[in-house]
Amino acid sequence: MNGTDHDTIVAPATAPGGALAVVRVSGAEALAVCDRIFRGRGKLADAAAYTLHYGRIVEPAAAGLSPDADAPAERTIDDVLVAVFRAPHSYTGEESAEISCHGSQYIVSELLRLLCRAGARMASPGEFTIRAYLNGKMDLSQAEAVTDLIASSSRAAHTLATTQLRGGYSADLEALRERLLELVSLLELELDFSEEEVEFADRTQLRETMEQIDARIEAMRRSFTLGNAIKQGVAVAIVGAPNAGKSTLLNRLLNEERALVSDIAGTTRDVIEELTNIDGVEFRFLDTAGIRTTEDRLERMGIERTLSSITRARIIIRLLDATQAGDTIPAPDFEVRQDQRLLTVMNKLDCCPGRTLPEGILGLSAKTGEGLDTLRCALRAAVDTQALYHGDTVVSNSRHAEALTAAHDALLRALDGLREGLPTDLLSEEIRQVIGHIGTITGRGQITPDEVLQNIFSKFCIGK
Amino acid sequence: MNGTDHDTIVAPATAPGGALAVVRVSGAEALAVCDRIFRGRGKLADAAAYTLHYGRIVEPAAAGLSPDADAPAERTIDDVLVAVFRAPHSYTGEESAEISCHGSQYIVSELLRLLCRAGARMASPGEFTIRAYLNGKMDLSQAEAVTDLIASSSRAAHTLATTQLRGGYSADLEALRERLLELVSLLELELDFSEEEVEFADRTQLRETMEQIDARIEAMRRSFTLGNAIKQGVAVAIVGAPNAGKSTLLNRLLNEERALVSDIAGTTRDVIEELTNIDGVEFRFLDTAGIRTTEDRLERMGIERTLSSITRARIIIRLLDATQAGDTIPAPDFEVRQDQRLLTVMNKLDCCPGRTLPEGILGLSAKTGEGLDTLRCALRAAVDTQALYHGDTVVSNSRHAEALTAAHDALLRALDGLREGLPTDLLSEEIRQVIGHIGTITGRGQITPDEVLQNIFSKFCIGK
Repeated sequence: MNGTDHDTIVAPATAPGGALAVVRVSGAEALAVCDRIFRGRGKLADAAAYTLHYGRIVEPAAAGLSPDADAPAERTIDDVLVAVFRAPHSYTGEESAEISCHGSQYIVSELLRLLCRAGARMASPGEFTIRAYLNGKMDLSQAEAVTDLIASSSRAAHTLATTQLRGGYSADLEALRERLLELVSLLELELDFSEEEVEFADRTQLRETMEQIDARIEAMRRSFTLGNAIKQGVAVAIVGAPNAGKSTLLNRLLNEERALVSDIAGTTRDVIEELTNIDGVEFRFLDTAGIRTTEDRLERMGIERTLSSITRARIIIRLLDATQAGDTIPAPDFEVRQDQRLLTVMNKLDCCPGRTLPEGILGLSAKTGEGLDTLRCALRAAVDTQALYHGDTVVSNSRHAEALTAAHDALLRALDGLREGLPTDLLSEEIRQVIGHIGTITGRGQITPDEVLQNIFSKFCIGK
Repeated sequence: MNGTDHDTIVAPATAPGGALAVVRVSGAEALAVCDRIFRGRGKLADAAAYTLHYGRIVEPAAAGLSPDADAPAERTIDDVLVAVFRAPHSYTGEESAEISCHGSQYIVSELLRLLCRAGARMASPGEFTIRAYLNGKMDLSQAEAVTDLIASSSRAAHTLATTQLRGGYSADLEALRERLLELVSLLELELDFSEEEVEFADRTQLRETMEQIDARIEAMRRSFTLGNAIKQGVAVAIVGAPNAGKSTLLNRLLNEERALVSDIAGTTRDVIEELTNIDGVEFRFLDTAGIRTTEDRLERMGIERTLSSITRARIIIRLLDATQAGDTIPAPDFEVRQDQRLLTVMNKLDCCPGRTLPEGILGLSAKTGEGLDTLRCALRAAVDTQALYHGDTVVSNSRHAEALTAAHDALLRALDGLREGLPTDLLSEEIRQVIGHIGTITGRGQITPDEVLQNIFSKFCIGK
């Protein structure tokens, strides 16, 4: 990205607080830099790829003032294991080392300080992955999948990121790009023979191909709704009159699943109040207040917030109170879009034993937990992950969704042009626009501006 | 420790939240267990020691129900690097592997689940280190140094743990044990010839040797005051009348150093309000309220807490207000023990320009920061770390201090017995007691009961 691409970068790759910590070093001089502070059996710079080396990290003697003037000449920081990677067979594609030390913050900060003094510099967020991209180890969409993978906390989000990381995604886009490039070369061949008014590209066939490509782009673009929901958590609004039991239901849904999560020993995680995992998919419950007609200004504001939550939700649970509801269930007092799923649920069934429910309405008792499993199944069934688990391309990155939208728009313009008999050179130019938009997703076949790279990689964590 | 010593144990060795995570596996079958879920170029069980292997962790096909019935047969969890260690050249001394994967909590928990299904079980805290101890890779005091090293957050605490981990400590104790064993064998030789009333062990020389040994034990025991202060942070009480500027001074001391700490990029740490690092030593400021005569019950409780802080402090900063104090400084209204250091400090010098201070009193302005460096130097000078940085044995573990006290007491009893002409067999028995107490520190030369081991290792973190 700039002239210092090949200097040696260093960063902690593990979070503070574990039994061990790993510090990552990469760059043409990475092993030589490590050798300056490493005392083992031999030089790391001479070591074979994929080997581990036991030794000590030391602060060299002549290196500045030490707190106690008569401290020992060469101070040992820690016993470490160094993993050696030789270019191009490393994460970045460069010469690299991973230093595994005791998980003390003091040791890690000393290690970073000494490595920087030995010639390395602190890496910026995502800089290791930028290098991997620049060295052709992965394309942009794969690089972006790395952070998604690290952040993934459900099976579905994990599958999403893994598929993208493995390049299934990129292959799809590459196929589209190649078909579009074929079209362009046919059109441009015509330009070479423009004097002769030859038509190499049959216009009907051209239209068909472009429409097929657009259908594919549209399918990918549509998949973003699912991809985004899986990545961010499927948004669910629980809506109902005050006292219908919304909070009790929410607590039920959250607590039972939370207990399951904490079953796995050694895996603590930040508790985010509103997230719960149902059968491999994460659901995110939106905060809602009860809806009713009111003159109270504060309450109206709460209701407005609820209506906005309903708009953002992918699934709406309409909670009714069995002790209040009559036999006929009125239509909901809010709008349900086509891309939303409405689940009508009758709560407090424990208070009305034997009550029969109208067709399509789920019954439960948030208090006793009865019927909860059925609700969970209904929630999970509302998210169709078949495509995902079958390896179909599911877009989850908003940058990609935007690029696909831009590609679709450009393709529509090209189709319009085709219909209106646009000159071949201009038509070709329109299709090149489509190729350009698709190309931004993987960064292949074109040069990605520095600003775009900065923007993508600034979201990465340190050490990745 | 029990019959399942050699089963395969597994635990995450890194904290959640990093770019990468490491899962540790150890036991005779460790590599075979990993092979069941690892897909690489070859079998890990055939791999050479100290080699790294790139491959995929998979969930084998026939392994139970999958959330989506028609999911692919073998599901990939992550691309990993596996470091292979062969017995006895590993941390535990057993066959071991360290699996380095993407730092996602989901991936780590899946990895642990699959390893457990493949034949491993979750390790208890410190279980890897217990195995290292049982396999003779380190003694007990070295094992205890491992947690100290991980917890170390200052240069002094780090040096303390490193010295102990490298066994300087153990060598010292071993030398004492050997001298004592010599005494015992001389005495027991006498018993063999008891009919002949020979005295192999000259009583005067015996006494001298025992006194020398006791002096050494006492020196080690005394070093616990320093060792403990360094490990826990040197306790400092800032004492003064209300409005003398205690809080301003504390904030100054904490904030300026905190800014220094956060200078090192990529090293965040939990902020503990009252800790600050001065030149490699951590200081812990105790909460105190102003001292004055009062009838108010609540205020009296605050003052009692202050007096208790003073008792616990190693250094007391007595803060005076230059705008209130006269030329003669009265004696402090609290007791200062011999092992405590009193620093009398005159604050608010900015309000009294040109004021001269009596000998031995430090002047400063907490408001402007003037004189703060001098106070910091005085604080740091009050902790003599020469012994530490020269590699002398400094005891920092309360279990060891207790064992040394018990050894000292037993040695005094032996000396009493010697003086009172105790029969040789009883004298020898007393010295064996001393040897026993010293032996508990390293666990060498005797069998350590399971309860003691449990107690020591239960304080370890998971994965160590």
